[in-house]
Parts: sequence; C-alpha cells; structure tokens
Amino acid sequence: MRIYGDSISGNCLKVKWTADHLRIPYAWIETEVLKAQSRTPEFLALNPAGQVPAVILDDGRPLAQSNAIILHLAEGSDLIPADGYERAKMLEWLFWEQYSHEPYVAVARFQVRFAGKPVGELEPRLVERGKAALARMDQALAGATFLVGDRLSLADVALVAYTREAGDGGFRLADYPNVQAWIGRVERALSIGG
Amino acid sequence: MRIYGDSISGNCLKVKWTADHLRIPYAWIETEVLKAQSRTPEFLALNPAGQVPAVILDDGRPLAQSNAIILHLAEGSDLIPADGYERAKMLEWLFWEQYSHEPYVAVARFQVRFAGKPVGELEPRLVERGKAALARMDQALAGATFLVGDRLSLADVALVAYTREAGDGGFRLADYPNVQAWIGRVERALSIGG
Repeated sequence: MRIYGDSISGNCLKVKWTADHLRIPYAWIETEVLKAQSRTPEFLALNPAGQVPAVILDDGRPLAQSNAIILHLAEGSDLIPADGYERAKMLEWLFWEQYSHEPYVAVARFQVRFAGKPVGELEPRLVERGKAALARMDQALAGATFLVGDRLSLADVALVAYTREAGDGGFRLADYPNVQAWIGRVERALSIGG
Repeated sequence: MRIYGDSISGNCLKVKWTADHLRIPYAWIETEVLKAQSRTPEFLALNPAGQVPAVILDDGRPLAQSNAIILHLAEGSDLIPADGYERAKMLEWLFWEQYSHEPYVAVARFQVRFAGKPVGELEPRLVERGKAALARMDQALAGATFLVGDRLSLADVALVAYTREAGDGGFRLADYPNVQAWIGRVERALSIGG
C-alpha cells in the first residue's frame, strides 16, 4: 500500500497510526498541502477531491477520506467493535469528528500554527464550536476509558488526531480534564509520542 | 424505532428513506430545528450534539449522525455492497458528503429557502465549493448508473438528499447533466417524489 499524506495533517496521521497498529506494511509518500502537491494533475487523478490522505491499495485501486481508509484497513480487527451497537456508536463518532470537530479544532490549529494568525484573531464561531466539541468529548469521557465500550477503537484513533494538537489552536486542554487523560491513554495504546 | 427528525432536513430524510426502503417500521417524531426543538434538555439527553436526526432503537438505545444511522439500519442489506472495496468506496462517499458537500450545498439551500437570503448574497466560498462538489459528482457519474458499482447503495441515498434540492440554493442542476439523470434514477429506486 502507498499512503499519500502530509505529516502535519492529523487526518493523514490517522491512517499511519492505524496501519502501524495493525502492522500493515506501507510506503509513505509525503504530499505537502502547503506546496499544493494535492492539487497536481497526477494527484487529482488519484483523488479528484484533491485532499490528503489518499491511498493506493496493494491491488492498485485508490481510496480516499481518512475515516473510510481506516475503516477499510481495520476491517476484521479489534479496532472495530464486534457488537453491532458499539460499531454504530463508533461510526457516530467518526462522522461527528468530520462534521463537528475537525472543521473547528483542526482549522483553528492550522490557521494559528501554519498560517500565522494570532489566536485572538480567530473567527469567534470557530473558537466557540471548537470549545463545544471539546466539551462534548469531555462529557462523554466522564468515567469512561475510551469513547466506545472499554477498549481502543477507531473512534479514539480519529478523534485523538486533532484533539491532541488543540492547544496549538488556542484551546486549553486543561479545561477538559477527561479529554486530557484520554489523550494520554490513546497515545500509549497507539505508541505515539506525547 | 423512533426517528426524531425535521422533514425539511435532507439528513433526516436519508433515515426515513432507508427505513422505508428496507421496510423497517418506525415512529417519526417531528423535531423542528427552526423552533430549537433539537436544543431542549430532553433532546440533548438523547443526542448531546443537539442535531437531528437521532433515533431510539427498539432496545431503547440512542444513535445519532445520519450516515451512522443508515449504515446501522442497512447492515446486511443490499444497500451496502458485499465487496470490500466497493464498501470502502461507499464509505468514502459518505464521509465526503458530510465534509465537502453538505456544508455548502445544504447550507446554501437553508440560507436561501429558510432564512430568506437572496442567492446573490450567498458567501462566494459557499457557492464555489458547492459547485465544486456538484462538478465532482458529475465527473464520477459519467457513464455510471449509481455512485458505487452498478446498483443503489447508501452512497446514493446520502448524496441525493441535498443534491436534489440544490436548485433551492441557487445551483443550476442543468449544468450537471449526469447528476440530473442520476437524481431521477435514485428517486425512482427509492420511490420518492420528483
């Protein structure tokens, strides 16, 4: 498998972490969004949406969308709950992540860290919705070890990617103690740096 | 099953259409977003994200996120491709829909039809990205009957919901002839009004 990804992108790191965790071999092809490498004709032929990550599977077929890729890679593994309801809750988190978390938490981090915008100049809606996303996670993680059931699932892999970087977007993770403790647990489970 | 949904919301109609197509019985509980009925304490206890649709399954457990709900309802049915790669491509479309289509095509329609904003006053970014989403679908549907493989799948159910209403947001469906023909096919397959 070839993974076309940008190392600064949490969406891309999800795919790397899932493959590493499941010991799936791959070649990583660094594809820098800031250099428009995801907008070249060659890349658009691979993913017409012009977004990283995208992968070429071992049989030569392409696949895009971080959460679709990790669901495909993890099929039949213990990163996907065997119980039907838990599997559905995991999917609920994956869709919520892309709709209600990433567009705020990841975008704020990108604007501050990579586009040089001061935290105080972020659009108020971005900050407000990012805080709401973190608060919702903090509520869900009260008394819980992981987001779904009592073991690591793709919900944790997907949500930790940008949540652990939220401080770079001006969010204070110390305000969300359940989230902060969960980040440590997920990083240990995935053997990724703190 | 109880479906808490707003009849003006494509995200909610996806759930209704999937249940109807699979002959899954349900009670529909109209929940009007414009009246903030998805923000009451009772509703937030059901879905802390404060979004419709949400369902209460027959065993009393809640589930949210339109695409997670339809994936759960359709498990084991022919709305989910049996082939692993086709299933992954269907998931790619479902995540793309929530990230790159709904936030533009559905939001433009909402602002024009339900908030009374003239089409000419829509934010240019909304219009540009909505057009890009429709163009990408038109390209994918060239020579294809449905989005994945040669039969109806959840990708079509999810994408048709707001695509068929795109005209209300000022998009010209006649500019996307493959999309226009596909809408008719999906409407007929789901037995929903044109």
